Amino acid sequence: MSDDIPGYTFGEESVPESPLDMPAFNRLKETVLFTEEDEEYLRMAGEVLDGQIDDVLDTWYEFIADHPHLIQYFSTPEGEPIEPYLDRVRERFGQWIRDTCNPPYDEDWLNYQQEIALRHTNEKKNETDDVDSVEHIPFRYMSAFIYPITATMKPFLENGEYSGDDVEKMHSAWFKAVVLQVTLWSEPYVKNGDF
Amino acid sequence: MSDDIPGYTFGEESVPESPLDMPAFNRLKETVLFTEEDEEYLRMAGEVLDGQIDDVLDTWYEFIADHPHLIQYFSTPEGEPIEPYLDRVRERFGQWIRDTCNPPYDEDWLNYQQEIALRHTNEKKNETDDVDSVEHIPFRYMSAFIYPITATMKPFLENGEYSGDDVEKMHSAWFKAVVLQVTLWSEPYVKNGDF
Repeated sequence: MSDDIPGYTFGEESVPESPLDMPAFNRLKETVLFTEEDEEYLRMAGEVLDGQIDDVLDTWYEFIADHPHLIQYFSTPEGEPIEPYLDRVRERFGQWIRDTCNPPYDEDWLNYQQEIALRHTNEKKNETDDVDSVEHIPFRYMSAFIYPITATMKPFLENGEYSGDDVEKMHSAWFKAVVLQVTLWSEPYVKNGDF
Repeated sequence: MSDDIPGYTFGEESVPESPLDMPAFNRLKETVLFTEEDEEYLRMAGEVLDGQIDDVLDTWYEFIADHPHLIQYFSTPEGEPIEPYLDRVRERFGQWIRDTCNPPYDEDWLNYQQEIALRHTNEKKNETDDVDSVEHIPFRYMSAFIYPITATMKPFLENGEYSGDDVEKMHSAWFKAVVLQVTLWSEPYVKNGDF
């Protein structure tokens, strides 16, 4: 199914290498306290979210659409939202949820984070979808999104058949996975040697 | 009391200006859904944490001490932890908790975030405490710390006399405030124009 997602190139040869090797990635995982238990709870979250992905995306897209300073990144430089661009990104965003809930995170996954990162910067934004939108997403909004992308997930995790304790653990694993990924996505934004 | 904290220069003339003006800061607050209700809950958190600050710092310092890849940033280039440096930073770290729990965040506060940011980079690390430590903290660890600094706060907030719902709201406000600040601290790390 992921083969049909426009611009989704996970595992393909065109994907760049991650600037982090596995030992460095492991140190980063330790810093966010990411363990095998989190991997189990992310897979559990994947089950719970299956069938709710569109609802999650509706929540996130509504949040973006409600804020002119956010929707502009899916718009023409003149400020007109580009529907086909929003639609294509939406499909990849859904797959991103599935991929996040499908650890362990291997080298293909790590490399794909670099591809995702670049697609938000001057270097590659708009290219995948061949659109005429603004040139990049400022890093401050990439970082700030850690909060809404984490917090809004909780009620969806509560919709499963798991107890409050399991929901907490799924949510905590999700939070770690989001911080981990946004951290990886910062690399092309950060000055040489400062990442 | 904050006058006695070594290197704490909040509100002083030496503090640089924030690269964000108030409207831009407000857009960032909107992105992390930060509202006046969060300000109330942060002040409530400040009450609950009063008297527990040292315990919070013990938790954070133990986490850092347990990881060689983290304690190195408080060590000599040869890897020897610098106790006076750890002690001075610890006092400011405690005051940082108090300041985070003392909104609204005004222009002095916003400017001081830039000072804090710079003190982690090549530009100003070690200067405030006149120490011979490594030259900077890589941005990836600044970003990754969002998780431990947020998650470890929960049990301390539960130690107060507030209900589970109030604890959730205090913790959520703390989470937003941490994401907001780490986002501001990214500015000197990020390439020109990409913040």
